[in-house]
Amino acid sequence: MNNNMSTADCLERLRALDRERMHISRAAALLQWDQETFLPSGGVEERAEQLAVLQGLAHEKLVCREIGELLDKLRDALSSNYVIQNTQDEFPAGDFIRVLRRDYEKAVKIPVEFVRECAKAEGLSQAAWVEARKQKDFTAFAPHLEKMLDFAKQKAVFWGWEKTQLYNGLLDYFEPSLGVKELTEIFVPLRDRLQLFLKKIAVSPKPDNIFFHHRFEETKQEAFCREVLSGIGFNDKRGRMDVSAHPFTTTLGFNDVRITTRYAASDPLSGLFSVIHESGHAFYELGLDNSLRYSSLAEGTSMGIHESQSRLWENVIGRSRAFWAPWFPRLKDYFSEELGEIDFENFYRAVNTVAPGPIRVEADEVSYSLHIILRFQLEEKLFSGKLSVNELPAAWNTAMNDYLGVKCADDAEGVLQDVHWSMGAFGYFPGYALGNLYALQFWDKLKEELGPVDTMLQRREYGAIHSWLRDNIHRKGRCKEPAGLTREITGCSLSADSFFRYIEQKYTELYGL
Amino acid sequence: MNNNMSTADCLERLRALDRERMHISRAAALLQWDQETFLPSGGVEERAEQLAVLQGLAHEKLVCREIGELLDKLRDALSSNYVIQNTQDEFPAGDFIRVLRRDYEKAVKIPVEFVRECAKAEGLSQAAWVEARKQKDFTAFAPHLEKMLDFAKQKAVFWGWEKTQLYNGLLDYFEPSLGVKELTEIFVPLRDRLQLFLKKIAVSPKPDNIFFHHRFEETKQEAFCREVLSGIGFNDKRGRMDVSAHPFTTTLGFNDVRITTRYAASDPLSGLFSVIHESGHAFYELGLDNSLRYSSLAEGTSMGIHESQSRLWENVIGRSRAFWAPWFPRLKDYFSEELGEIDFENFYRAVNTVAPGPIRVEADEVSYSLHIILRFQLEEKLFSGKLSVNELPAAWNTAMNDYLGVKCADDAEGVLQDVHWSMGAFGYFPGYALGNLYALQFWDKLKEELGPVDTMLQRREYGAIHSWLRDNIHRKGRCKEPAGLTREITGCSLSADSFFRYIEQKYTELYGL
Repeated sequence: MNNNMSTADCLERLRALDRERMHISRAAALLQWDQETFLPSGGVEERAEQLAVLQGLAHEKLVCREIGELLDKLRDALSSNYVIQNTQDEFPAGDFIRVLRRDYEKAVKIPVEFVRECAKAEGLSQAAWVEARKQKDFTAFAPHLEKMLDFAKQKAVFWGWEKTQLYNGLLDYFEPSLGVKELTEIFVPLRDRLQLFLKKIAVSPKPDNIFFHHRFEETKQEAFCREVLSGIGFNDKRGRMDVSAHPFTTTLGFNDVRITTRYAASDPLSGLFSVIHESGHAFYELGLDNSLRYSSLAEGTSMGIHESQSRLWENVIGRSRAFWAPWFPRLKDYFSEELGEIDFENFYRAVNTVAPGPIRVEADEVSYSLHIILRFQLEEKLFSGKLSVNELPAAWNTAMNDYLGVKCADDAEGVLQDVHWSMGAFGYFPGYALGNLYALQFWDKLKEELGPVDTMLQRREYGAIHSWLRDNIHRKGRCKEPAGLTREITGCSLSADSFFRYIEQKYTELYGL
Repeated sequence: MNNNMSTADCLERLRALDRERMHISRAAALLQWDQETFLPSGGVEERAEQLAVLQGLAHEKLVCREIGELLDKLRDALSSNYVIQNTQDEFPAGDFIRVLRRDYEKAVKIPVEFVRECAKAEGLSQAAWVEARKQKDFTAFAPHLEKMLDFAKQKAVFWGWEKTQLYNGLLDYFEPSLGVKELTEIFVPLRDRLQLFLKKIAVSPKPDNIFFHHRFEETKQEAFCREVLSGIGFNDKRGRMDVSAHPFTTTLGFNDVRITTRYAASDPLSGLFSVIHESGHAFYELGLDNSLRYSSLAEGTSMGIHESQSRLWENVIGRSRAFWAPWFPRLKDYFSEELGEIDFENFYRAVNTVAPGPIRVEADEVSYSLHIILRFQLEEKLFSGKLSVNELPAAWNTAMNDYLGVKCADDAEGVLQDVHWSMGAFGYFPGYALGNLYALQFWDKLKEELGPVDTMLQRREYGAIHSWLRDNIHRKGRCKEPAGLTREITGCSLSADSFFRYIEQKYTELYGL
């Protein structure tokens, strides 16, 4: 770097380097998208290598000395709220420096040798997890989990966290400024309220599973999904929808955000709810302000806020009476034989059945957060040493029974059900529950400001909702951290009250409690 | 580089660098494939930037000093036929050094600044060509063509060619050791024979275009194409077929070779012949020896040899009586209403109609090479100064009338019809005609060695043909240059005799000459 460069030149150079790295990351994302959608089976092995090369290049481009030097120079030269006036928009340079510094420091503090060792161990660990789950036997996986836990702790040490604060380090990585203390204060009372509420529901009559006895043709399911997707405002000039084993959303460009789903022959809604869920993620990525384009600011600000958007669309909107009022007749058009005799109220009850079970990804709205709180508490105990890896399955089963009244038949539907831990992703789960909480805090504010939202949904008018979400959340990208964003929008800090009130009202009415 | 590295270590390091670069190139190829198949329209602009970044990285990885040093060291240490014995196969290290040195020198001799300038000018030139073609007006494009010609000459100068030999430099780039002299010696007599033969055909009765009056449903066309594709031995574990505006083949991995096609509603065979043509390219890339995997040797050896494989499948096999004997009844199953009344002989005549026209890509087997020879001769005159860019349209029209008896209505169906020159791809066209010549030389040898090939085709038995092509051509990748390969297989050097004999026999019978 030339030491005589002006601040403006430094910033321009830093943006160019960041932009190049973003392009490499997007190319890596395309390799992954293709792997999940269209890659011929023979190409899997080589694809892993291609991906490792591109991810390695993106990492190199982030941790290079020039970035570090430019960041140092610019931190001194720019105030944190510095903004660059362009002809058409303004670029939040202060936020850019802050966010890029965060990413840079997270990356540069981890030795390359350690990253390599981790990647190798993760590969082995995931393979062991697949096998252990197949065998329904935790013991074969335990030594790998032990290792993953160790690596996760070491990572937090590299980032500079105290020995007693390592779990906080990981939580902070996914959701800044929400540590064990803050989450416990929110999650424990929520757990107690949800448990109590679930018990009330348990003793009331259950709706039948109305879809169970039919086969729903996949091509028709897809056609209906595409109609809904387009109806709720997904623009196929800026994205697409394909099929993969596990639904996901990926951003391949500022105007190229792709979602996937999968179809179940016995259930015409499983694929659709995935579509709506992933659309929520996609709307976030597609709603970024144009000025953030091609920079590190052009992403959702945290995993929890991202999840708030997907859960808002899937559950709060997508499982509401008002939403289905116009869509149920259309669904019946597609499946007149299969659904002809079902009336709207039965249908609405069916898509909102509360039935606690062992599997997180199949959980209803009321149970779901309990699955997460359980995982959060077990992770906390693993990190603080209150629980050993070997004691984990028993602790899991006890908590599952305690929180949800559910007995796991074996480890496969218990402690081994999720892939996350096998990849060393500790501190990741809480974001799923946080998504529920943020979603309802935002939704309450949205309704306060927009008025008769149900009428809009009944008319399939989603424009005002999109505008509100875009203005308040999406366009800001990573310029605001979750806590600041929440306060800016709602005037309050994170709380479970909106969420629980929503659950209570909706299901009290539904179950006639 | 450590100067004390052993030869084995140097080679290993060079292979690792080459492998990394191949992975980046494959990722770039995926970006392109996606652009032509699935990219949402909004993503086009950003995709161009992503692609430029990846292609730039791949270039950097090739021209780096370490590669140059390793190549120097290894050239002195290894004989040209050096081979490394692995447990399962042997790696032709001598060929590897030779090929990589060729690529390295071609790349390193061109200044980075020039590459950038070229890329920019090409972008403008292509845009001008699109517009000029739309306006059917060559004059607006002429200055760009002038520039492209200049750049192409400069490139040959950078590569070290004498002022009088620049066109040879470009020809050599695409097809080593075939220069103006060699091509003229082959092309001129071929032109004369084809012209004479065309005149004979012109005075004999023409078959009707039997498909012209029907619409052929695209989903059925696709289903038939997939059946043929699988029938001729394309393995969908190692590749896939999609739709794009212009059919192409791309290699995304050693076990991931993809083809595309497009369907015309009025013609059920246009899409199919593209599928068969691209399959020929794909079989080549899929037939490489496993030992070449992930190295610069893992590609077809030249544009002409590659084209020999696609043209062999599309024309020699795909337009033969024996091939259609079992497939015509299947085609009729798909389109019983549209084709029910057509008998086999009429069908066979229809897919082999000779009808000279102005457009190269629509040309029949007899006319096609004349389109190429015309372009080759015009290119030669442009480079030697016998023709100026402004004189080109007139020269084109004269030659078109002279060679094919065809009058171009305007520049759009004349000199502006191909994209190649607008991209500066001079010296590229001859490969298309060479493909025809190589194909028939190989095919004659194949029949000599395999015997009753027609019987195989009638039985849909393609295994022996695949094995022969694989053993003699595909598995060798870039280890053999075209001239050496041709001599190794046929015992002769390149010649147009096999090709013309094939044309003469097939069409004398067909047209009852």
